[in-house]
Amino acid sequence: MYNCELLRFMNITDKQGNLTPVEGNRDIPIEIKRIYYITNVENGAIRGYHAHRKLHQVLICLKGSVNIKTLNPKEEHIYKLDNSYTGLYIGPYIWREMFDFSDDAVLLVLASDYYDESDYIRDIDNYMKEAKHRF
Amino acid sequence: MYNCELLRFMNITDKQGNLTPVEGNRDIPIEIKRIYYITNVENGAIRGYHAHRKLHQVLICLKGSVNIKTLNPKEEHIYKLDNSYTGLYIGPYIWREMFDFSDDAVLLVLASDYYDESDYIRDIDNYMKEAKHRF
Repeated sequence: MYNCELLRFMNITDKQGNLTPVEGNRDIPIEIKRIYYITNVENGAIRGYHAHRKLHQVLICLKGSVNIKTLNPKEEHIYKLDNSYTGLYIGPYIWREMFDFSDDAVLLVLASDYYDESDYIRDIDNYMKEAKHRF
Repeated sequence: MYNCELLRFMNITDKQGNLTPVEGNRDIPIEIKRIYYITNVENGAIRGYHAHRKLHQVLICLKGSVNIKTLNPKEEHIYKLDNSYTGLYIGPYIWREMFDFSDDAVLLVLASDYYDESDYIRDIDNYMKEAKHRF
């Protein structure tokens, strides 16, 4: 199991605009304890560079586009998120990097738990050591 | 008590962009059971036109700007949401209308419960009758 998966949400479109609902534990496999969102990312900036030991997340690009590289010790994938009705589920022990943010990109992240610094692995060598027996 | 309140969130800014975290039951007075987001709203469109009997919501404009009119039988307020670190809490029995969406507006709504059509009051006269003894 790679521990990453694209999810497709409802997109209710009419002349009043687009509306997408996402219900915790229903449309996504996690409860939404925390959200965060990223905007105004400079051209060329790369974010992420970490993995989580326990946290599950769903990334949704609400406007514009962004590329997400995910990897574990055995596989690497790049996902282009460029619409508001697709989410990228990322499970524990997946290293992620976000890059090629468009100027107008708005990236929303839904997280299964509150912020906990001890859940982060921020060094790729340490990540590889901890993760290599899990995949 | 008017049942609406502006909330200010953290805004972590660096050369990599802006990041705002919102934790359920901590940064906002509700658990996040459901989210939805609205994009690509046509010029002149007005959304909302309803109140909820039980649902609590927090509205955040992640990009662009939007005006939110809220009212109860005794008071009416207009809030201009034009940054990603301000949320508008709207409690039960508040009528709301969203208008003047900018072309690039992204409106995120955090909701305290799953979708339930029976929780909506969609007619302003019925709303006034049900709400008038509550304020």
